[in-house]
Amino acid sequence: MLEVLREEVYLANMELKNQNLIKYTWGNVSGVCREKKLFVIKPSGVDYEDLSPENMVVCDFDGKVVEGDLNPSSDTLTHAALYKAFDHIGGVVHTHSPWATSWAQAGLDVPVYGTTHADTFYGPVPCARYLNQEEIDRGYEYETGQLIVDTFVKQGIDYEAIPAILLHGHGPFTWGKNAKDAVVHAVVLEEVCKMNYRTQMLKHDASYLPQEILDKHYLRKKGKNAYYGQKKG
Amino acid sequence: MLEVLREEVYLANMELKNQNLIKYTWGNVSGVCREKKLFVIKPSGVDYEDLSPENMVVCDFDGKVVEGDLNPSSDTLTHAALYKAFDHIGGVVHTHSPWATSWAQAGLDVPVYGTTHADTFYGPVPCARYLNQEEIDRGYEYETGQLIVDTFVKQGIDYEAIPAILLHGHGPFTWGKNAKDAVVHAVVLEEVCKMNYRTQMLKHDASYLPQEILDKHYLRKKGKNAYYGQKKG
Amino acid sequence: MLEVLREEVYLANMELKNQNLIKYTWGNVSGVCREKKLFVIKPSGVDYEDLSPENMVVCDFDGKVVEGDLNPSSDTLTHAALYKAFDHIGGVVHTHSPWATSWAQAGLDVPVYGTTHADTFYGPVPCARYLNQEEIDRGYEYETGQLIVDTFVKQGIDYEAIPAILLHGHGPFTWGKNAKDAVVHAVVLEEVCKMNYRTQMLKHDASYLPQEILDKHYLRKKGKNAYYGQKKG
Amino acid sequence: MLEVLREEVYLANMELKNQNLIKYTWGNVSGVCREKKLFVIKPSGVDYEDLSPENMVVCDFDGKVVEGDLNPSSDTLTHAALYKAFDHIGGVVHTHSPWATSWAQAGLDVPVYGTTHADTFYGPVPCARYLNQEEIDRGYEYETGQLIVDTFVKQGIDYEAIPAILLHGHGPFTWGKNAKDAVVHAVVLEEVCKMNYRTQMLKHDASYLPQEILDKHYLRKKGKNAYYGQKKG
Repeated sequence: MLEVLREEVYLANMELKNQNLIKYTWGNVSGVCREKKLFVIKPSGVDYEDLSPENMVVCDFDGKVVEGDLNPSSDTLTHAALYKAFDHIGGVVHTHSPWATSWAQAGLDVPVYGTTHADTFYGPVPCARYLNQEEIDRGYEYETGQLIVDTFVKQGIDYEAIPAILLHGHGPFTWGKNAKDAVVHAVVLEEVCKMNYRTQMLKHDASYLPQEILDKHYLRKKGKNAYYGQKKG
Repeated sequence: MLEVLREEVYLANMELKNQNLIKYTWGNVSGVCREKKLFVIKPSGVDYEDLSPENMVVCDFDGKVVEGDLNPSSDTLTHAALYKAFDHIGGVVHTHSPWATSWAQAGLDVPVYGTTHADTFYGPVPCARYLNQEEIDRGYEYETGQLIVDTFVKQGIDYEAIPAILLHGHGPFTWGKNAKDAVVHAVVLEEVCKMNYRTQMLKHDASYLPQEILDKHYLRKKGKNAYYGQKKG
Repeated sequence: MLEVLREEVYLANMELKNQNLIKYTWGNVSGVCREKKLFVIKPSGVDYEDLSPENMVVCDFDGKVVEGDLNPSSDTLTHAALYKAFDHIGGVVHTHSPWATSWAQAGLDVPVYGTTHADTFYGPVPCARYLNQEEIDRGYEYETGQLIVDTFVKQGIDYEAIPAILLHGHGPFTWGKNAKDAVVHAVVLEEVCKMNYRTQMLKHDASYLPQEILDKHYLRKKGKNAYYGQKKG
Repeated sequence: MLEVLREEVYLANMELKNQNLIKYTWGNVSGVCREKKLFVIKPSGVDYEDLSPENMVVCDFDGKVVEGDLNPSSDTLTHAALYKAFDHIGGVVHTHSPWATSWAQAGLDVPVYGTTHADTFYGPVPCARYLNQEEIDRGYEYETGQLIVDTFVKQGIDYEAIPAILLHGHGPFTWGKNAKDAVVHAVVLEEVCKMNYRTQMLKHDASYLPQEILDKHYLRKKGKNAYYGQKKG
C-alpha cells in the first residue's frame, strides 16, 4: 500500500538525518495521501540504519495504524491533527534540532532579521505556549497538534506562507507541500535560528527586515511571478 | 575473564569517541559484573586506535587490578565508589565533553528548559562543589566518587531518575544500567548543555519546563507505562 | 565560448561549497572576460551536483544572457553592476555564509580586531544600508550593485584594499582579481566574522588593531615588498 | 640533513591541519636540533597537500636558510628567538586557531576554570601586549619572539609549566619538548579557550579553579610522581 509515498517518506527521514538535524531517533517525518486520507510515518525509536520504505507505518487521520508491524512515531497524533486542519499540506516534520530547540526553550518567536528567512518564511515564525494539565490529560500529542492550529488561527497567520512553528519548551514542527519540502523548511529554520541568535548577541536591538524587502525576497522566490531558479516543465 | 563485558566496555568507549565527546584520551567508560563484584575499565592514556577488548583492565571494588597488564584509568577509584554506592547501575562514564564541561566550570546545575532534557533526566542535573584540601589529601579520585554520592543523598535525588552529575571545575560523570546506556546519557547531557546555554543567552530568565510536561515526557519514555519505541521481546 | 573561464567559474563555485559556505543553492560565483565585456555565472537554483562548466551562463554587462540554456543567478545584475564600476576585479562572490550573514543582519561594519583580518582586508569591512522602496521598484538586484559601489565611493574606501561588503539584512559580497581569489576573500571574511563575534562577546569594548600592525600585516602579505609565500615564476 | 627531524616536523604540521586548527596556510610548526643549533620549519604559504619532509626548510638561530629551496615561514624569526631564549624546548607552533585567536583579539589572559586546563598548563595562559612602532621597525617577527620571552620573564612564569602564550590582536604560540608535543599544546589551548569562553558567558564572575585542585591535576599528569598513563619503557 502506498509504495511511492513510503519511499518518499523514507527518503525524507534519511535526508533529515543527513542534514545533521537528528541525534539518535529524535525526529520524524510523515507524508500524506489526501485521496485515501492516510499518512505514512516513521516508526517510533527505530535506529536510522534500520529504517526502510517497508517498515514505515501507515495511519489514518485518527492516528490508527492501518498497515505496519511497528509502533508509529509517538508524535503520530500531532501529525494527524495537522493533516486534518491544514488542507494543503502534504508532509510534516518534527525535530529537536539544536538551534530551533534553543529558541523554543526560550519561548521566543523567531523574528525576521534577514533575507535568508524571507526567502522561505513570509514573517516571524511563532512560538506556541506550553500545554496545560487539562490538555495533557486529554491527550498530549493530539492537543499539541490542536495548539499549533489554534496558534495560526488566533494570530491570523497563513500556514502556507509560514510553514513552521516552535513549541515552548519542546522544539520545531514544519510542514510543506510534501515530505521533502517539509524537510527543507526544517533545515532553513535551523539555519535561520542559528544566524538570528548571533544577530541578537551582536546587537540586542537589531532592526527587523523592512516589509518591502521581506515582500521582495519572498515573492521573487515563492510568488506567482517568481523568477528564482529554472522554469519547470 | 569477563569476555562479554570486556567487549561491551570496549565498544562503549569507542562509541564515546565516535560521538565526538572525546579529545585525545580524555574520557573513560567502565561496566560492572555485580555477581563477581568486578568492573572492566579503559586503560589510562592509551590512544583509542590501540584499544581492544583484550587490553581493558579488570578491577575490584577497591580499584585493585585483578587482570590486565596496563594501568587502569586514573579515575578508577571514582568508578569504584559509584559502583559501591549505587546498587542498580551497570556502567559509568566520565568525559571532558566541551558543553557539559563549560557548565561544570561555571559551577551551575543544568536546569530543565525542555523536553529533550525531560525525556532522559527527571529534573535538573546537579553540579557538585569543589573538593577541599583534606579530601584531596585523603584520595582525590575516591573522594570524588564519595562527593557524587553525598550530593545525591543530601539533595534527595534519585540516581536512577537523574543519571548524571557535573563536578565544579572538572566535567560530567554519567551512569546507566550498563556501559552503553551510560554513554547515551553522556551524549544527551552534552546536547542538553549546548541547547540550554543558548536558551540562557537568548533569555536570561527563561522559564523552567512546567512540572506536568516534565512528568509527561519522562514517563512516556521511561515510566512503566512508557509508549515510546517498540515493545521489547 | 570562454571555455577556460567557464572551467574557472565552475571550480570556484564548487570550492565555495567545499568550504562549507553554502546551504542548498544559496550562493553564486562569477568571473569576467574584460576584453569581451562578458561574464560567466552560476545558473539559478541548480543543485551543486548538477553543475558543470557547460551549464554555466554567459552574460553581458547588462545581465543579458549571451550563451546558455538556463536562467543565470537571480543576483546576476548585482554582479554586472560591480563589473561595470570596479574596473580591476575579475570575479565576484555572493553567499549567505552564517557568520558574515549574522553581522549583516545586525547591520554592523566588521572592525579590525586582529591580524587575520589585516592579512586580507586593509580596514573594516563596511555594511551597506537597506535598499528603499524606490530602489526596489527600480530594480532590486541592479540597485544592490549600485549601493555597493556608492558605499565605497562615499566612504572613500579602496575596493581593491577591502574586497568585501555586507548588505544590511542580507549577507556578504566579495570580489577579487579572479573568481578563485573572490572565493578566498569570502572564506576569510567568514572566519574573521566568527572570531570577531567571539572577541566582542569576551570584551564588548575590545580595542581595534593599532594602525601600525594593520599596515605591517597587510603590506607584508599584499604590498609591493610583500615577503609572505614564495616568489612567483 | 636532519632527515628524522624533517619527518617529525612534516608530520607535526600535518597533524595541526588534521586537528582543524588551520585555514589555508595559516600556521607553522618547527622542531630544533640543539646539537647543531638548527631548526626545521614549514615553508611559507605552501598548500598542505604540497608539503613533504623534503621541502621543509632548515634554518640557523638567526633565521638564515641553511638548506632548502623555498622561503621559510614568514614567522621564522619568532621561532628563532624562542629557541635561543627557551633552552629546553624542542618544537614551536603558531596558529590562527579560532578560539585562541578570539581571546588574543580580546587581549585577555586565559584564566584557569577547570582541570582540562590544569592537566596541561600550570596557571593562566598570558596574553602579551601589542608590539609598538619602534619594535615593528626594528624587525616585527624577531621582536615578537622577544616580547614572548620578556612577558614570561617579567611575569615570572615558567615556560615549561605554561608552554603557551597569546599575542594581543594576533593569535597563539605554543611550544614543547618536541614538535609533536607543541602541537598537542596548541590543540589543548584551543579546546580550553572554547570551554572558558562558554564558562564566562554562563557566569561572568565564574570562580577560578582552587590552587589545590590545580596542583593535584597538573602534578598527577606532569609531576615527577605522575600516575596518569602507562609507565614508559
